[in-house]
Amino acid sequence: MILVNDQWLSRGEAKVDIEDRGYQFGDGVYEVIRVYNGKLFALDEHLQRLKRSLVAIRIKPPYPMEVLEKNLYQLVEHDQLTDGIVYLQVTRGQAPRGHGFPKAAQSVLTAYTKSIDRPLKEMTSGISAHLTADIRWLRCDIKSLNLLGNVLAKQEALEKGCQETIFHRDGMVTEGGSSNVFIVQNQQLVTHPSSHLILNGITRQQIIKLATVLGIPVVERAFSIDDLFAAEEVFVSSTVQEVSPVVTVDKVVIASGKPGPLTQQLQKQFETLINK
Amino acid sequence: MILVNDQWLSRGEAKVDIEDRGYQFGDGVYEVIRVYNGKLFALDEHLQRLKRSLVAIRIKPPYPMEVLEKNLYQLVEHDQLTDGIVYLQVTRGQAPRGHGFPKAAQSVLTAYTKSIDRPLKEMTSGISAHLTADIRWLRCDIKSLNLLGNVLAKQEALEKGCQETIFHRDGMVTEGGSSNVFIVQNQQLVTHPSSHLILNGITRQQIIKLATVLGIPVVERAFSIDDLFAAEEVFVSSTVQEVSPVVTVDKVVIASGKPGPLTQQLQKQFETLINK
Repeated sequence: MILVNDQWLSRGEAKVDIEDRGYQFGDGVYEVIRVYNGKLFALDEHLQRLKRSLVAIRIKPPYPMEVLEKNLYQLVEHDQLTDGIVYLQVTRGQAPRGHGFPKAAQSVLTAYTKSIDRPLKEMTSGISAHLTADIRWLRCDIKSLNLLGNVLAKQEALEKGCQETIFHRDGMVTEGGSSNVFIVQNQQLVTHPSSHLILNGITRQQIIKLATVLGIPVVERAFSIDDLFAAEEVFVSSTVQEVSPVVTVDKVVIASGKPGPLTQQLQKQFETLINK
Repeated sequence: MILVNDQWLSRGEAKVDIEDRGYQFGDGVYEVIRVYNGKLFALDEHLQRLKRSLVAIRIKPPYPMEVLEKNLYQLVEHDQLTDGIVYLQVTRGQAPRGHGFPKAAQSVLTAYTKSIDRPLKEMTSGISAHLTADIRWLRCDIKSLNLLGNVLAKQEALEKGCQETIFHRDGMVTEGGSSNVFIVQNQQLVTHPSSHLILNGITRQQIIKLATVLGIPVVERAFSIDDLFAAEEVFVSSTVQEVSPVVTVDKVVIASGKPGPLTQQLQKQFETLINK
């Protein structure tokens, strides 16, 4: 079932207008929410962030978050989704093309589920990452549909045989292609601070909390490419990738080339969150 | 009539899939082509640039440019358009969502016409512009659908009572919200060089040629905000705005506050191009 505003449509019926501003300007925002055991994971946090993104680009959602929440529960239930994701996006809606905000446009929300497995292999064996220059705009904190920079970088990584991109801006690591990046340095967890240069991932926020519970010191500061290569451990975090250790960066082996002990502790702790 | 790949559809039928990558990633490029007296203006130049944008993000168009050219002529003829524009965009097409390029996706082209008037009032009286920081990505040379930065900046300008945005990056003027920016300094025409920081406008290229014909020296170099405010003349150029004099920037009057003599010469010369 596809949710389009308050309509429940079949996959074939779910179409958008060619003048939807999402299609012509990428004028909209999105969220990817995890479903574990039929339950929407960290739903409040995702809806809060959605709200923040909407406010940042001044889109009024088609209905209040409470209605959206109810609809998302209904969507997961209808699709009988056990493990997977809900993808949802909200655009500024349909209007004759013009850069400025249209005077009368009704925002368009689309949402659907997708069954996906947990990244168990990646979490156990680790992944390879490819470094690339971060040429994206300076409001990466907004989870917007302007994702061409991420698309091109991810494709470049895939063609290098890597599973993820690691972006750097002026030599400082910002985030992953669709994840946040953490390193362990002197037994401290280091990650780029939440700023306009990165998306403040929900998993990122959870990991910071879990680390604190585990007594692992967390430092939110930008670190360099050199710090990355010299790290004791590296991992990326996201709704889909969970806590995935990075064992090589551009074929350079990180530390022992295996998932590190702090990474594994965080994976275990994250597991308890999922099973709550 | 709406052209969607090789189908001719009514406005109501023209829909796109919710998983069209244009809708989820802004993964596509576009062109706006002027129609004067029923004729597509600078069509070759627009199709060349479209090709360049498509190559830059590695989208294969649904059919060769020669077929597109034929279809655009047919579109204008069918709609009996005298004065207006053709808007066209090409996305990477429909595929299950994932950042990397899909293995099997057919690009989606949509095109339609719109009747618009020439900006005669703007050309005669001039327009007001608003300066704003250019926070967009570093591949503004690709005419992509990732336009949120342009949208937000244009809206900001409109709310300040201005008709156009002028972007500056680190104090240097790059381009307009949907135009290129020229100043006259020491009786020379100065404009940002064609680089990754600006879109190399078709009208921009034409103006450079016309200036040369008129014996006006053209210098392609970045100029500062101070240069802008101290300019003898300022104008913006685009397919829709043609040659529009900028008479105030953030309420500061530029020179005499009236369209300058070189701007007017260029307008006149541009007029002859249109009527060719």
